[in-house]
Amino acid sequence: MDKILRVRMSSKPEYSIEEVGDYAGIGGRALTSKVIFTEVPPLCHPLGPENKLVIAPGLMSGSAAAISGRLSVGCKSPLTGTIKESNAGGQAAQVLAKIGYAAIILEGESPEGKLYTLIVRKDSVEIVPADDITGLNNYAAVEKLVAKYGEKCAYMSIGSAGERKMANSSIAVTDMELRPTRHCGRGGVGAVMASKGIKALVLDDAGCSVRKPVNDEAFKAANKEFIAGIKKHAVSGQGLPAYGTNVLANVINEAGGFPTNNFTTGQFDKVHNISGETQAETETSRGGLATHGCHRGCVIQCSGTYVDKDGNYITKQPEYETVWAHGANCGIDDLDAIARMDRMDDDFGLDTIEMGATIGVAMEAGLCEFGDAEGAMKLVREVGEGTPLGRILGSGAAVAAKTFGIERAPVVKGQAMPAYDPRPIQGIGVTYATTPMGADHTAGYAIATNILKVGGFVDPLKPQGQIELSRNLQIATAAIDSTGMCLFIAFPILDQPETFNAFVDLINAFHGLNLTADDVTALGKDILTWEREFNKRAGFTKEHDRLPMYFKRERLAPHDAIFDVTDEELDQVFNW
Amino acid sequence: MDKILRVRMSSKPEYSIEEVGDYAGIGGRALTSKVIFTEVPPLCHPLGPENKLVIAPGLMSGSAAAISGRLSVGCKSPLTGTIKESNAGGQAAQVLAKIGYAAIILEGESPEGKLYTLIVRKDSVEIVPADDITGLNNYAAVEKLVAKYGEKCAYMSIGSAGERKMANSSIAVTDMELRPTRHCGRGGVGAVMASKGIKALVLDDAGCSVRKPVNDEAFKAANKEFIAGIKKHAVSGQGLPAYGTNVLANVINEAGGFPTNNFTTGQFDKVHNISGETQAETETSRGGLATHGCHRGCVIQCSGTYVDKDGNYITKQPEYETVWAHGANCGIDDLDAIARMDRMDDDFGLDTIEMGATIGVAMEAGLCEFGDAEGAMKLVREVGEGTPLGRILGSGAAVAAKTFGIERAPVVKGQAMPAYDPRPIQGIGVTYATTPMGADHTAGYAIATNILKVGGFVDPLKPQGQIELSRNLQIATAAIDSTGMCLFIAFPILDQPETFNAFVDLINAFHGLNLTADDVTALGKDILTWEREFNKRAGFTKEHDRLPMYFKRERLAPHDAIFDVTDEELDQVFNW
Repeated sequence: MDKILRVRMSSKPEYSIEEVGDYAGIGGRALTSKVIFTEVPPLCHPLGPENKLVIAPGLMSGSAAAISGRLSVGCKSPLTGTIKESNAGGQAAQVLAKIGYAAIILEGESPEGKLYTLIVRKDSVEIVPADDITGLNNYAAVEKLVAKYGEKCAYMSIGSAGERKMANSSIAVTDMELRPTRHCGRGGVGAVMASKGIKALVLDDAGCSVRKPVNDEAFKAANKEFIAGIKKHAVSGQGLPAYGTNVLANVINEAGGFPTNNFTTGQFDKVHNISGETQAETETSRGGLATHGCHRGCVIQCSGTYVDKDGNYITKQPEYETVWAHGANCGIDDLDAIARMDRMDDDFGLDTIEMGATIGVAMEAGLCEFGDAEGAMKLVREVGEGTPLGRILGSGAAVAAKTFGIERAPVVKGQAMPAYDPRPIQGIGVTYATTPMGADHTAGYAIATNILKVGGFVDPLKPQGQIELSRNLQIATAAIDSTGMCLFIAFPILDQPETFNAFVDLINAFHGLNLTADDVTALGKDILTWEREFNKRAGFTKEHDRLPMYFKRERLAPHDAIFDVTDEELDQVFNW
Repeated sequence: MDKILRVRMSSKPEYSIEEVGDYAGIGGRALTSKVIFTEVPPLCHPLGPENKLVIAPGLMSGSAAAISGRLSVGCKSPLTGTIKESNAGGQAAQVLAKIGYAAIILEGESPEGKLYTLIVRKDSVEIVPADDITGLNNYAAVEKLVAKYGEKCAYMSIGSAGERKMANSSIAVTDMELRPTRHCGRGGVGAVMASKGIKALVLDDAGCSVRKPVNDEAFKAANKEFIAGIKKHAVSGQGLPAYGTNVLANVINEAGGFPTNNFTTGQFDKVHNISGETQAETETSRGGLATHGCHRGCVIQCSGTYVDKDGNYITKQPEYETVWAHGANCGIDDLDAIARMDRMDDDFGLDTIEMGATIGVAMEAGLCEFGDAEGAMKLVREVGEGTPLGRILGSGAAVAAKTFGIERAPVVKGQAMPAYDPRPIQGIGVTYATTPMGADHTAGYAIATNILKVGGFVDPLKPQGQIELSRNLQIATAAIDSTGMCLFIAFPILDQPETFNAFVDLINAFHGLNLTADDVTALGKDILTWEREFNKRAGFTKEHDRLPMYFKRERLAPHDAIFDVTDEELDQVFNW
């Protein structure tokens, strides 16, 4: 991880391999955000040659540290116009780190829109025309790539949405079964990869070893303690493995914060039909899997496999946010339909949150009725076909609302809110409003403390305490997103001091460092500062750190809640 | 003009008539911008109930002052998100001023999207369901209204684009022939009127007189001198009456600043076929009119009537910007096709500049070939039909480019640049970048001095002097836009001191004031300050006062020009 691969796209693509230099000692989101902040002109067009796409494994990726396989992709986002870090599981981070790259940086543009495959091996880099897979969606493209490059590589690819440079296009990352099911979903990163002329990456770690810790014994001890801590905690050790992330459906619905029918009510009367419990039972009864990891080294196993009534694979277990987006948010209670939309999203290369939120907006605009699963599936297919309607829907909820002439787009900075209504869960509203990423639950997951009572408790219905909560979570998250560790380690490390200590020990033992908790906090603050400074130079102000006005006007049942954290309070989030 | 009519739309529409109060002594753009600045929360959604639509005649409208019939419409714009003043000729300003209203302010929203007709008479106001005209485009709607309310009223209306709340929808104003040909075009004001539930306004000045000056004799003398000055100047007295605004086609093409094929070159090899000279000859040879006023009291007569080969009316004489937008910018050299698109734009209620720029973007995205007039007409029809593609195109060039995934959208703050490329004509580039309105030539028409050598000469190809030029023009324009005077008075008042004096004398004599040139400047600065402060509170910064980056990267033939006014210089425009 002491090299950077820099690929310059033009009519004559070329690359160079550099020392990591000024970017040494950081990984994941810290690295992507530092490169974008340092090298990309903030006023550039996201699809223009001045933008860059940075692909970085975490600081611990490729090692034996538990659950360290998260990948960060960074750029200026075509969806939001802000800096963007989009994060996925799958195999790519581990493989890329083992090959020895701290980052791949894609620069320039492909003049005639020609697409290439970038093949990265221990001792070679190739940029070859992707004519064989151009025009294919992710499943078909990956199948062809696997046939050609083998089952030991990790693959990243864009589908038709990315090729069409849609603002909601993702980059797919293959999972352990070589399926393109893990996505850098948010912010349209797929369109940026397309604008650089890259259809797919083949990451081949043949001949590479697991990265070795500086202090092997301390590392092993810390890892053991860390894993024990993860398994001990009720959320990461029981809830998530048993039911996957969709364990939240009943919980958030009970809290009255389950956005239903495009954020018009906070409870879905058919939640039972799409809950994690029902989903797990459906999966196991049909021969699917309710417990499974998204990458090697995962000790939580919150994923799974969703199969049809005949036991045939449809998609990986749809996540809570996906089940919500294509389910409750559209009034849909049909798990099979939701799974088929998840499959289409993965195949076309679309963020499921943005896609479901966009269909909610389209339903409000009258394109089909809330609850119409067939109608919703037809809308997703339009995106895959690239029809004019598909172009609208593939541009995300904000553009769709503008195009249809309606006010009620649940977005911040052009990005759709995920599966938690900010009115009865005000802490997450603070995160939506203020994170440099546009509405994003993962940027500061206040649900932990507002609802799950992890890391204490802050009453979700009141504005008091939400600023501090979101601030602390945003700082911690930025740091965690830099390690390659799955964000779900936050549950045990917030609640169990010994697990937090093991987490820090793990990093120290691996890198031969003496970081303290304060250093972790300082890193989180640095990352947020780079990101916010980029956004400021791109024209973002405190006025963009706001929820849409209707969240302060329209009360949400059952709590009759509006978002009542004041603007002045919001402006204090980064005043540390 | 001492009253304000305030209409509150809800499930039970109501109105009140107020004294002009704090808004006394100003008209037109000064009044619309002051009301929006004072009363509208800058972060509201443009289509939400917190936005307002202000309709204001100029300070001199309804009087015998020459060429004083311009109308201002103000709101927060759905196209740009900025404050907006959109300005049109036609009969409405004169009639509304004679009825005695300084402004009509539309507030609230129509909950079920129901549309009403607002009828304003000397002694009465009515808000009646518009079921008889809902769903009709402007020509058909106005025809029905005229049949019902008579030929002596002025009418304002929205077509299907406005009803669909498209971001490029206009408000049509009837001309002397009761045709909906004069438009408050820019910024999507039609969508705001629709969101307020108003389909049309009937303005009936029966029983009202021409507004009387305080000092009749001085007024008459000043008006005579003012008219003489307008008629004496080469642009307002000869060029515009002879060939209409399209007299500019050859001039701007010669200067290499005639944006062709979506701003990829600065000269159109077929300009002869669409020039003002050819257009006037075509009109007169077919029995149309090349010289005509857009409202009673006009002494320039730059409009006309465009008829088909059989002498049947198609549309009013398309303006220079329209001929450019639907012509050169799309590689189209067919005046008849351009006229038919102008007619469709007027009928559906669309801004011709934005529509043509959007088709240019669509052509670049491959929807049809540059030069394909039939293809372009089909695209405009899609907007009228409200198909998904029409929804994209009706949302303006910026949204279309985002939806099609292309970089080259010639926009500032979401609004399309008009018919002058900012690279070889750098003064207009400064105006595009910095005006609070989004790219808008009328906000500070640097063409006057860069190309026409009115008010001196500043070399269009060099950055030197452009800041001062744009600053002074923006200040003067804001003031002129407040009088109800046509902006074309700028040509004589910039060049002829005696005409400027007559202009000030005219205002003073009418209102019994003693304004000096400094007072006029101060008013212009006040207006710009309100507008910029609104925008600042809506989240706009100096980073939004920029041209798209490709105007600094891609050189434009024939001058091989890029826009090279620096950002630091741009930031000095309002530093007076």
